[in-house]
Amino acid sequence: MAAPEHPRMSDVAERAGVSLSTVSRALRGASGVAPKVRAEIENAAAELGYVVSRGASSLVTGRTGRVAVLVPFLQPWFFGVALAGMNTTLRDAGRDMLVYQVGDVGELDDYIHSLPLRRNVDAVIALALDLDEREIARLDEIGLPVVFCSQRVKGRRSIFIDNTAAAAEATRHLLNLGHTRIAYIQSKDQTGFSWDSRDRLKGYQQAMADAGAEPLVLTERSGREGGARAMGKLMSVERPPTAVFAESDDVASGVLQVVRRSRLAVPGAVSVIGFDDNDLAALFDLTTVSQPVQEMGEHAARLAVDLVDGGAAQSDHHVRLETAFVVRHSTGPPRENMGLHG
Amino acid sequence: MAAPEHPRMSDVAERAGVSLSTVSRALRGASGVAPKVRAEIENAAAELGYVVSRGASSLVTGRTGRVAVLVPFLQPWFFGVALAGMNTTLRDAGRDMLVYQVGDVGELDDYIHSLPLRRNVDAVIALALDLDEREIARLDEIGLPVVFCSQRVKGRRSIFIDNTAAAAEATRHLLNLGHTRIAYIQSKDQTGFSWDSRDRLKGYQQAMADAGAEPLVLTERSGREGGARAMGKLMSVERPPTAVFAESDDVASGVLQVVRRSRLAVPGAVSVIGFDDNDLAALFDLTTVSQPVQEMGEHAARLAVDLVDGGAAQSDHHVRLETAFVVRHSTGPPRENMGLHG
Repeated sequence: MAAPEHPRMSDVAERAGVSLSTVSRALRGASGVAPKVRAEIENAAAELGYVVSRGASSLVTGRTGRVAVLVPFLQPWFFGVALAGMNTTLRDAGRDMLVYQVGDVGELDDYIHSLPLRRNVDAVIALALDLDEREIARLDEIGLPVVFCSQRVKGRRSIFIDNTAAAAEATRHLLNLGHTRIAYIQSKDQTGFSWDSRDRLKGYQQAMADAGAEPLVLTERSGREGGARAMGKLMSVERPPTAVFAESDDVASGVLQVVRRSRLAVPGAVSVIGFDDNDLAALFDLTTVSQPVQEMGEHAARLAVDLVDGGAAQSDHHVRLETAFVVRHSTGPPRENMGLHG
Repeated sequence: MAAPEHPRMSDVAERAGVSLSTVSRALRGASGVAPKVRAEIENAAAELGYVVSRGASSLVTGRTGRVAVLVPFLQPWFFGVALAGMNTTLRDAGRDMLVYQVGDVGELDDYIHSLPLRRNVDAVIALALDLDEREIARLDEIGLPVVFCSQRVKGRRSIFIDNTAAAAEATRHLLNLGHTRIAYIQSKDQTGFSWDSRDRLKGYQQAMADAGAEPLVLTERSGREGGARAMGKLMSVERPPTAVFAESDDVASGVLQVVRRSRLAVPGAVSVIGFDDNDLAALFDLTTVSQPVQEMGEHAARLAVDLVDGGAAQSDHHVRLETAFVVRHSTGPPRENMGLHG
């Protein structure tokens, strides 16, 4: 079949062997078209040289075919993995992904401020932004569906893990090994404690209380430096802990750095647990809690697409994903009465 | 001043204290408006409730206000840092950033295939994609400006570092310390050797040849596993090298893992050099070559914006950014005749 000089949508439909309305839906990014069919239609359109202007299309449908993802950072492992999950899901749904880094409250305000002006997306995913009530209310003013990913917001569409249960599980692992002097390192940034941070601390506190053990919580800045600083302090207390639970693998890596420099054995002298199962954890043989980060991204993107397409997700729809406790070689029984001197 | 009920562009201009044409340029994302002025105009527009439809605007200007970034991966450190640089620059220029993960040739083909259909961006940045001539020709068919970031493409707009010179420098560091048995670990993926990889190998080979030293090159898959596997082999050869140059910090981390497990001293028994200065390098006290990744992203985004705005960048415009050699504690003089037995 020779390609018509000025191909029309009906030519695309004929070539792809589908109905005109399916072509229309596929090319404007509407729902209900299987990824495979969408791909065949796009191939047929491309072969024929049929061009649909998304701009013109969006004036008709009122849709842009795009979803914005707001992130506080782009560098850390967590964000790359979550964005990869979102990217795949959005692509399969025929949507484009816009990314905005809003590193501080001012940048977030700027974004929220200018979004109504731009009208360039159909939905917004807030990824690990830890928004407070005022900020969430601001986002609502935009008048677009918002999905919260890696933050539980009561009464709102959100995808998250049960940090409290997972942290309690990790703490019980140490208690079951025979540890009683278990320190917890909590992270605090300029904006305070994150949602994750508060919930993980709760889990540690609950498990310690249930076991009748005395909690010992240190608060430092996040990341490796915070972990190194906290471990330095812990090595100088009167009865050093035999185990340390860091609220993230990054923090745990700082703990391990100090422990190694001091030539203390892990887990002989001190057991260490992190949280995340990031790309460092396996390298350090770190016992940790594995978060399904890519899945969180996929779920958030799927929910955003469904909302745009008028899916039935209720305004308080939420998905709690399972974590997995990963035992490696950084944890073992305590050496009785030896602590750091083991 | 009370906000008018149906604000017009002239109201925005008055409130922001700028000309009508400046408002028009700012709100449609055109060039020549300082970020600060743009922000003031957007604030004034938001305060007045003035809404410009980017879709409608793009039908007039033929511009979308968006730039697409194509990446092979989203997880690795390199991509997060480069995207962060692009994101900041694009935002300051009033542009939105779309991200597409095209992990393999098939996905890249799909993207290229569907792009003319979508007409949703003004320019494309290919980030570390290692495109071959055929793929580059395909990208050209789209009819949009393309900027290559972290790949030098002859006669094309590209942002890159001088991998050959940097690798030669790293090799000379080892030679100057007194090493002569210096192994090089090269990475190969399904699609073959990357542009970076080929150029770095050249630098190593040149420096070794200049010094009259015998090159020893191992080829493994990329990443930590490849490094671990290569180091395993190197520990089993007749006269093990006294120094190892890994083509990336990730590969070097695998080398160090094996070295540590074998309880060999670094740099006593073996010196190790990486490439990238990623977030692991400092943690491992790894001597390495620092790439200005964020700057590469910023330059690429700036070039893309200039091209869209009709800036004067020639079709073969390219920017070569400086690397820095970072000496840490993973390199030192060889122990004479002790090799791995030191």
